[in-house]
Amino acid sequence: MRATYIYGPGDIRVIDVPDPTIRNSTDAIVRVVRTCVCGTDLHPYHSMKPDPEGSSIGHEFVGIVEDLGSDVHTVKKGELVIAPFVWSDGICDFCREDLHTSCRFGGYWNTGGTGGGQAEAVRVPFADGTLVPVPVEETSPLIPSLLTLSDVYGTGYHAALKARVSTDTTVTVIGDGAVGLMAVLSAAQLGAQRIILMGRHKDRTDLGLEFGATDIVTERGQEGITAVRELTGGDGTHVVIEAVGHMPAYEQAVGAVRPGGVISRVGVPQYKSAPVGFGSLFAPNITLTGGPAPVRAYIESLLPAVLDGSVEPGKVFDRETELDNIADGYRAMDARTALKVLIRP
Amino acid sequence: MRATYIYGPGDIRVIDVPDPTIRNSTDAIVRVVRTCVCGTDLHPYHSMKPDPEGSSIGHEFVGIVEDLGSDVHTVKKGELVIAPFVWSDGICDFCREDLHTSCRFGGYWNTGGTGGGQAEAVRVPFADGTLVPVPVEETSPLIPSLLTLSDVYGTGYHAALKARVSTDTTVTVIGDGAVGLMAVLSAAQLGAQRIILMGRHKDRTDLGLEFGATDIVTERGQEGITAVRELTGGDGTHVVIEAVGHMPAYEQAVGAVRPGGVISRVGVPQYKSAPVGFGSLFAPNITLTGGPAPVRAYIESLLPAVLDGSVEPGKVFDRETELDNIADGYRAMDARTALKVLIRP
Repeated sequence: MRATYIYGPGDIRVIDVPDPTIRNSTDAIVRVVRTCVCGTDLHPYHSMKPDPEGSSIGHEFVGIVEDLGSDVHTVKKGELVIAPFVWSDGICDFCREDLHTSCRFGGYWNTGGTGGGQAEAVRVPFADGTLVPVPVEETSPLIPSLLTLSDVYGTGYHAALKARVSTDTTVTVIGDGAVGLMAVLSAAQLGAQRIILMGRHKDRTDLGLEFGATDIVTERGQEGITAVRELTGGDGTHVVIEAVGHMPAYEQAVGAVRPGGVISRVGVPQYKSAPVGFGSLFAPNITLTGGPAPVRAYIESLLPAVLDGSVEPGKVFDRETELDNIADGYRAMDARTALKVLIRP
Repeated sequence: MRATYIYGPGDIRVIDVPDPTIRNSTDAIVRVVRTCVCGTDLHPYHSMKPDPEGSSIGHEFVGIVEDLGSDVHTVKKGELVIAPFVWSDGICDFCREDLHTSCRFGGYWNTGGTGGGQAEAVRVPFADGTLVPVPVEETSPLIPSLLTLSDVYGTGYHAALKARVSTDTTVTVIGDGAVGLMAVLSAAQLGAQRIILMGRHKDRTDLGLEFGATDIVTERGQEGITAVRELTGGDGTHVVIEAVGHMPAYEQAVGAVRPGGVISRVGVPQYKSAPVGFGSLFAPNITLTGGPAPVRAYIESLLPAVLDGSVEPGKVFDRETELDNIADGYRAMDARTALKVLIRP
């Protein structure tokens, strides 16, 4: 089959690899219907150490179950399934606590003998624990929205949920990428009345307004902080969702959060240490939360509104291409000419 | 009157200063019945820049109202009052949200024209917002326990409350100082069944067992982390309360907390930045919370059990001395020969 590999910064290739096969009785083989490129994929695309052997890449996909191990009971051959960006056994104590990203026996794609999702097919361990079947045809126009449940929608939702967004909460979202926009949608679904989106790409912030943002701040850094504070009587917002992962975004979050408030991070941090001392987080009693979203925990609750069309998170896809042209998709996302690129194997 | 001033590392003196007087109609003058030395006072005691003018110090006291401005209505002359370690107006939006430490017009003692609490008397701004009257005589044996509501008990309670300790929560407390022991007591009051106290002073950890600790870990650093993990099936505890403020304690907290758990800091951080990246807090979805406790918010709810004697937080005082000998108290706490020193002006 064809699969996407990354060999170093900017070096994305689609190559022939052996078809995945059932190894354990709890495995499924899923033929990928749609996959996509994630903002997270751009981190190795910028900075991975060149490796002549390359690495399989991609962690978001929906597909059709093609083959099953003998111990899989909750999905059937031929069903359309959503694959979260982490595979998990579904039965350990962390999974039962809805923290599938800390599953005792789970892992990210391209670990534990799995491949990446930007491929024609994927071996899925713990199919019962990992996959969520959906009663939808692979030709359905809902496919892009369902694909967001694989990562970005659940990730935005996690950010809002961990920050305990409610009707009483004012929210700032830093980052107008797909996760930031999904955080806007999620905060609105949780009842937030005031959602300030910080971003500078008008097509994206327009989509943010459609998803529920009430204010757009295009400035960055200290100017951006000042703008948020001016919008909130000098206080900042109860919640700041940091959906970027770079230090300037963290610093912006510290500057924009209200005393007693919460910074919720879902951008994968590209730094090891950050200001957390008396002057930054401690004196104003700021809580720092977030992490990789256990999206598996959220799919069932977010699914109905996707299926009935009342939310359309799939609008974050503004470009589509064939698997063999995926390198163009990476380039477009890196250049910010595309928000999120849908891939058709 | 006599008041304690600090002039530099190890340089504590009791000097004569003018008696405090009413300046604003919302002020009260409180004659101090008992004050004490705090672990926090040891930070300037170790590292303040020498200053020939010195600074008034002390932030915990109970006393008798001696004089009142014309606009004070909730306390009367002659009443015994508890003074929180922050003065606050009680009516701004932060005070009404129980975040008195972020009061729009409040401050710490020895700012805003106030003196420190380690003195014979203190001018208290916003007496209605700040002071809590208690129907107790100044000769009552309850005075030491009431004095803990000025800071350490409320601070330990804040740590446990911000971490959302409940009957389902396992807890580690790092630090066997007064705040750590009060965090043990508070976690037990909130229902925690398993409370691991990390400390190496047997008299203190014995008191911790009396307050509700179920396990004592005397090891530090990686050995301490290993010990906590061994006690919890390898996982660490849902909550780690960090009641020290130094980087090794923070690192110990990161090592001892369970995935999905909470680190709650009430030791004033003696560092500006700390590890919060993918490997430390992000990947395991750890929440970092805490800050200076709005103890004013907790006094009323913690008071009944103190008044009826069902809790005795005053047991943290293991030495008592006259105000003029307070420098001995600082030395004893610095040398760890005293846990917490009660001062009699």
